[in-house]
Amino acid sequence: MVVRTPQQFKEMQDIDVKTEHRVTKIDPKEKRIEVHNLSKSETQWFSYDKLIVATGARSRCLNLPGSNAKNIFTLKDLQDGIRIREYVDENKPKQVAILGGGFIALEMCEAFRLRDIETLVFCRRDLPAGNLEREISERILKELQKNGIYFLTHHEPIAFKMNSNGEAISFETNKAEYPVDMVLMAIGVIPNVEMAKEAGFELGRTGAIKTDFTQMTNLADIYAAGDCCEVFNLVSQDWVYTPLGDIANKQGRVAGENAAGGKATFSGVVGSAAFKVFELEVAFTGLGTQTARGYGFDVDSQIIEAESKVGYMPGSKRMLVKLIFDRKNGRLLGAQMVGKEGVARRINALAVALHQRMTIDEVARLDFAYAPPFSAPFDPILIAAEQAAKKIRK
Amino acid sequence: MVVRTPQQFKEMQDIDVKTEHRVTKIDPKEKRIEVHNLSKSETQWFSYDKLIVATGARSRCLNLPGSNAKNIFTLKDLQDGIRIREYVDENKPKQVAILGGGFIALEMCEAFRLRDIETLVFCRRDLPAGNLEREISERILKELQKNGIYFLTHHEPIAFKMNSNGEAISFETNKAEYPVDMVLMAIGVIPNVEMAKEAGFELGRTGAIKTDFTQMTNLADIYAAGDCCEVFNLVSQDWVYTPLGDIANKQGRVAGENAAGGKATFSGVVGSAAFKVFELEVAFTGLGTQTARGYGFDVDSQIIEAESKVGYMPGSKRMLVKLIFDRKNGRLLGAQMVGKEGVARRINALAVALHQRMTIDEVARLDFAYAPPFSAPFDPILIAAEQAAKKIRK
Repeated sequence: MVVRTPQQFKEMQDIDVKTEHRVTKIDPKEKRIEVHNLSKSETQWFSYDKLIVATGARSRCLNLPGSNAKNIFTLKDLQDGIRIREYVDENKPKQVAILGGGFIALEMCEAFRLRDIETLVFCRRDLPAGNLEREISERILKELQKNGIYFLTHHEPIAFKMNSNGEAISFETNKAEYPVDMVLMAIGVIPNVEMAKEAGFELGRTGAIKTDFTQMTNLADIYAAGDCCEVFNLVSQDWVYTPLGDIANKQGRVAGENAAGGKATFSGVVGSAAFKVFELEVAFTGLGTQTARGYGFDVDSQIIEAESKVGYMPGSKRMLVKLIFDRKNGRLLGAQMVGKEGVARRINALAVALHQRMTIDEVARLDFAYAPPFSAPFDPILIAAEQAAKKIRK
Repeated sequence: MVVRTPQQFKEMQDIDVKTEHRVTKIDPKEKRIEVHNLSKSETQWFSYDKLIVATGARSRCLNLPGSNAKNIFTLKDLQDGIRIREYVDENKPKQVAILGGGFIALEMCEAFRLRDIETLVFCRRDLPAGNLEREISERILKELQKNGIYFLTHHEPIAFKMNSNGEAISFETNKAEYPVDMVLMAIGVIPNVEMAKEAGFELGRTGAIKTDFTQMTNLADIYAAGDCCEVFNLVSQDWVYTPLGDIANKQGRVAGENAAGGKATFSGVVGSAAFKVFELEVAFTGLGTQTARGYGFDVDSQIIEAESKVGYMPGSKRMLVKLIFDRKNGRLLGAQMVGKEGVARRINALAVALHQRMTIDEVARLDFAYAPPFSAPFDPILIAAEQAAKKIRK
């Protein structure tokens, strides 16, 4: 997963990557940064012409009694992953408690079950992936249960009990106390903006760094990119916090090009993402019903179930497609899909439709590639759009 | 493959389906059709208020000496397929000659090889799927050869030699004579328009029936739909002949709705299709380089090779993506892709882009769903579009 080493940066592009150097302060007036050299334990100032802040995000932690136990993990980067794997390899936990029901929690369910570890998921909401539509989340819950995951809802976490070795041995909630061999906190991330805030960066309503479409911050010659900053959502026309790897990547390119004198812009996202949980593919783009309502859209939706390819083809699976649209003008606002086959790669056609502000009627008329190994003559997306369009026509 | 029987039509929707009834004449002045009842061997006239002509297409045949041999087949409908299977089951041919290098020919290569039949493909052009871009066709040829298909080019067919049993035993071309156990002619289809032509239907430049966007023909109260008629290509803005199942299906719905008093339109296609040949997925949409040039576009193109998902994920495969675009304004004109995984479902995002007349620069900025099991942070489509856009920017 290490795409390029510091050596490769140097050799390929003459870029100096200073590892083991922690930036501790940004001084925008003097255009310099304070850097702590961790290996030499010394601090010095570096001056800059242009600065790109890419401080990323960190895992949220619940600050409970016992939260510092050494078998309580978070998962954000490669090192976290290595730590978790090493702990599992060395301590052979029989059971793990996961706090949270989002994508990381769900992906880790699969990872733990593949190692035969009994997995309990503690979730505040009543369904996994609670920011998705109810029908999609229900399908995910079914898949979790089929794979032996215990999904526990409405637990208020209270404390972890530790043994003398500094390991959590139980997790206490308002309902009961659960013995644990290991804990994963997967309750989201928060942007690393403290240093930026102190230096006078403007933060957005989301708490992440505010930039314009060139990734420039409010401060002269300073850009920001990635999980530490906001991104513009083209559907809601609002700046949001969507810390995802592909967005970070694109923002970084734009910030880099502009810092080097270019004129690139990053126009924004529509909110596309996908993940896999056991055999299930989940994909979505745009706004969900609740979010769309919050933005004042006159929301309606349509959900259909259809085959992923022509029914007589081997490997065809049922999939759910839910379209969220504006009843007033038929504009597509979002789409969510779940199924065991042919889901994730299908969503992008609807991402394009969102970029282009298409109506469900226009979506229903799209000319998709049809061949029995890949789709029925009417693709599930077209079926859903046609059903949705009928609601408005009448 | 029989979606609905005549009985089901009757029970579900009170529709009379008259099988074994051949329409032999259309009389638009008297608004009636001449029908030959095959089972009773009698002919009568039926009058109509509205008529929908859906006479489809038939396989093209080479009219060579010996073409009528009983082991020479074409493949257009279910009955053709059954006949071929029965002949194979009964006669256990060791070898088959396929005339033609299009989709049907290629799909049948796989079918014959799965039954261990040595397969020779005779093709006028130097590459299979010769209407696709050269790089795509070359990849297909490699896949054919890997699977033991003999692909023979530039043969002028001369005759079939028959035995006393009425079976072709050899195929003679300008180059050589090849022994054959069985022959498949897969050299395209021609629309069944003879009866329509005789009745005064206007035909298009392609030779198929001309309709407007409501599927109405030039004759009062007569609609046409499916493989017997033309379809409007939204990229070239030209009426073309594209006999494909999903298009026929959509035209049929529009014709039906309008014949019943509705006001539906079929706005056209962008030319999306996909097929599978052995392990390879092939998908395309829009115009190819040559066709686009023929329409006067200032054509440029960009081809890239990329992983179908993140390289470290199991099952990731290399795929080719070629984008065809207008150098003048960057407008996307077409896209073709080939690879072993994740190709067919990917093409539809580009079909939407064609419907919306997007530029390659706009395509490069699309927000696609990223997750390692399905795609790299930069989807192959985005990589291709970015490379294409760079060509124009400089």
